[in-house]
Amino acid sequence: MTDELDFITALRTIATTPAARGLEDDAAVLEVGGETLVLTHDVMVEGVHFLPGQDLADVAWKLVATNLSDLSAKGAKPVGVLLGHMLGDDDARFIKGLKEALEVFETPLLGGDTVAGTGAARSFGMTAIGVASHTPVPSRSSAAPGDELYVTGQIGAAMLGFEALRDGTAACSLAYRRPVPLLEQGIALAPLVTAMMDVSDGLLLDCWRMASASGATIQLDPAAIPVADPARFDECIRWGDDYQLLFTLPQGMAAPTGAQRIGTVAARSPSPLRLGDTAFADKTGLGYTH
Amino acid sequence: MTDELDFITALRTIATTPAARGLEDDAAVLEVGGETLVLTHDVMVEGVHFLPGQDLADVAWKLVATNLSDLSAKGAKPVGVLLGHMLGDDDARFIKGLKEALEVFETPLLGGDTVAGTGAARSFGMTAIGVASHTPVPSRSSAAPGDELYVTGQIGAAMLGFEALRDGTAACSLAYRRPVPLLEQGIALAPLVTAMMDVSDGLLLDCWRMASASGATIQLDPAAIPVADPARFDECIRWGDDYQLLFTLPQGMAAPTGAQRIGTVAARSPSPLRLGDTAFADKTGLGYTH
Repeated sequence: MTDELDFITALRTIATTPAARGLEDDAAVLEVGGETLVLTHDVMVEGVHFLPGQDLADVAWKLVATNLSDLSAKGAKPVGVLLGHMLGDDDARFIKGLKEALEVFETPLLGGDTVAGTGAARSFGMTAIGVASHTPVPSRSSAAPGDELYVTGQIGAAMLGFEALRDGTAACSLAYRRPVPLLEQGIALAPLVTAMMDVSDGLLLDCWRMASASGATIQLDPAAIPVADPARFDECIRWGDDYQLLFTLPQGMAAPTGAQRIGTVAARSPSPLRLGDTAFADKTGLGYTH
Repeated sequence: MTDELDFITALRTIATTPAARGLEDDAAVLEVGGETLVLTHDVMVEGVHFLPGQDLADVAWKLVATNLSDLSAKGAKPVGVLLGHMLGDDDARFIKGLKEALEVFETPLLGGDTVAGTGAARSFGMTAIGVASHTPVPSRSSAAPGDELYVTGQIGAAMLGFEALRDGTAACSLAYRRPVPLLEQGIALAPLVTAMMDVSDGLLLDCWRMASASGATIQLDPAAIPVADPARFDECIRWGDDYQLLFTLPQGMAAPTGAQRIGTVAARSPSPLRLGDTAFADKTGLGYTH
């Protein structure tokens, strides 16, 4: 199989329009008429992004939520989604979860495509379209030395939820099954931040990406990172699927409610990421491996 | 597996925004700022929409072409696409075909998602975003009694191309492998037509759909339908994948170049579709079964 990085590197030679942001951001940003559109597409594959046999109501919810989370990282308001659906068993559950998520997040279903499957692993795709609430639209590439780094919520909650679901324990699995895109927070933060992204593939990996894209080094303060299980700190900051917002503010700006200051941005040193005294030489092992 | 019609019927209870056009059209039509966006999403599954082992350069081209064909049926000019790509073998060929199609049709790649596969049948999704060149944007539901029905090009050419490819004969398979979306024709026709759609699932089935959506009956003249192989007329008009434009004009309007008048629109009789003296009671067997 082709390596993902190789494929995306090849795609970048095609995606040369500024709207594509070098395929390095959470979403495309396109000026149309007098508006700034924010566009994102996510795919979920059975056995890769969700458990075989998992309730399709949760899968549909999560498909909506992960797409809208990309919009939230751009401070965009959703105007609609398109669905790519592969038919199979339990589609009534899929419909139920889709309807719930779209109602809760006040997002219209605009259209899409429904196709036959082959009986093999199913996949579902969704495109979300939003309108920017603030321009310039936040990017992940504009964190500057001196900025302070913040994250919302708890990191690692989705990992604990996944384990509860996989193992059938009594612990709560909602954080994994039903993530909530932080749309209102994203809109409130967009005019304030120097850079912003959502934490989808693990806090460490996403910090690495923000620092790399910004040409800077992020210095994380391990004691300040709000993890769901301090005894499993290293796993929590690598697991992903939390869909919290990671952002930078100019030094000295008051911290927004619901966010924790977890580090600072410095001029680029040999490594783009430091956790306490540990400098990472490359991004191997920093994030999403599940 | 859920029946496709049942699933779409359930989706319609969610897709209540006017922009979704009741999920009965080729694309969604959304007003944003001062522009009218046209949005469509298509999925292609290995073994369903393309042959296992088929050159992925052709698959990527066709993924672009089928999406842009939906835009052409709305008279929209493409502003970009998002790609949902499942990694696997021969992705360099996929990149090659994608690049060729996007260059030929002058459409930017905006972004998307790249995911791991499971080794099972691969699927690819694409969302195309266009801007309407004419409002109101043509629909398939506004053919009126007295209108004349036209189609561009040759019907059944994709079927012959598919057979050439499947059987490895010397006949040309381009019509199946590399369909061409009729973007310029769609833009030229948009101000003239009363209804328009692309022929993706077979001429007969798509005529049935236009007539049903319009609350009218379409009377086809079999002798006038331009088929690729007259000896296999019945198959040509049912096979699909031709991506020609099917449209209606007010009675007496001069026929555009490159289009053939193939029938008329009448007030609704018991059947929405008649081919010569044959009235079809339902749409079973009218189209796409490959």
